[in-house]
Amino acid sequence: MSIADVIAGTRTAVAADSAAASATFRVRHELVGPTEVHARTGSGHRVTIDEPPVLGGANAAPNPVEYALTAIGSCQAITYRFWAEQLGIAFDTLSIDVEGDLDVRGFFGIDPTVRPGYQEIRVTARVSGPETPERYEELQRAVDEHCPVLDMFANPVPVSLQLEVV
Amino acid sequence: MSIADVIAGTRTAVAADSAAASATFRVRHELVGPTEVHARTGSGHRVTIDEPPVLGGANAAPNPVEYALTAIGSCQAITYRFWAEQLGIAFDTLSIDVEGDLDVRGFFGIDPTVRPGYQEIRVTARVSGPETPERYEELQRAVDEHCPVLDMFANPVPVSLQLEVV
Repeated sequence: MSIADVIAGTRTAVAADSAAASATFRVRHELVGPTEVHARTGSGHRVTIDEPPVLGGANAAPNPVEYALTAIGSCQAITYRFWAEQLGIAFDTLSIDVEGDLDVRGFFGIDPTVRPGYQEIRVTARVSGPETPERYEELQRAVDEHCPVLDMFANPVPVSLQLEVV
Repeated sequence: MSIADVIAGTRTAVAADSAAASATFRVRHELVGPTEVHARTGSGHRVTIDEPPVLGGANAAPNPVEYALTAIGSCQAITYRFWAEQLGIAFDTLSIDVEGDLDVRGFFGIDPTVRPGYQEIRVTARVSGPETPERYEELQRAVDEHCPVLDMFANPVPVSLQLEVV
């Protein structure tokens, strides 16, 4: 299905029944080594996660905070695709660089005033194409307002945490 | 390096020079198809991201909001490993299930009162091992206080967003 068809189809389906807009995503994870984790998504994909040797792993795969950056970067890219279509803005190439600054004193509990997560994240989108800079700035504003993963880092998400001892 | 060695080594290095605690992670992303994105982490790993057909993709890989769940789930698992070591709590198996509820009206801009990101995330940790339930609850509290990716979803992260028209 083309992006234009997806947008039109979603609008029609949601107008008929707003429950059609709701989706629950699921991923299961198993710790299989010192730091290696195997994940299986509800959509059937497998993902491997690991730490570099300096954090006790074998560097078999990206680590969780790198996947956090990839979630933002890929979400930005796909949101550019959808909102370019919605706004009628053409582009030729698009890349997204994402950086995050972490202070591991938070994770290790060495300093309780240091947060465990990134202290800052920087996103740089690079776009080329036939439109004016003003049109691409209009696109950027729409993307940053509607990007799901950006929203989840910039604003709090309610997270419930359960433990089952089996 | 064992997890115990990593913890001792990090504490020693950071005590000698707090700058040793700082790290910057980087990931570059390129939009290569309708919704397919290729990422390359600073640590040299490649990651593919895509959407399912209902969102205009070919389902070549998990989508960004699934990677967001994987970032949390794997970070929880690895934080269990580190804090079990720090607290002297043994376990045999550990799995982490993560679910998130999304309403796509936010992403498509159909309803401006609906946030683009997850409205709720649910994390269930399952642990087995020789310790009492109380010890595992102590472990859970330490994990949820120190898990980097959990922190970034539960609390806001400053995100700067730049656009370069090239």
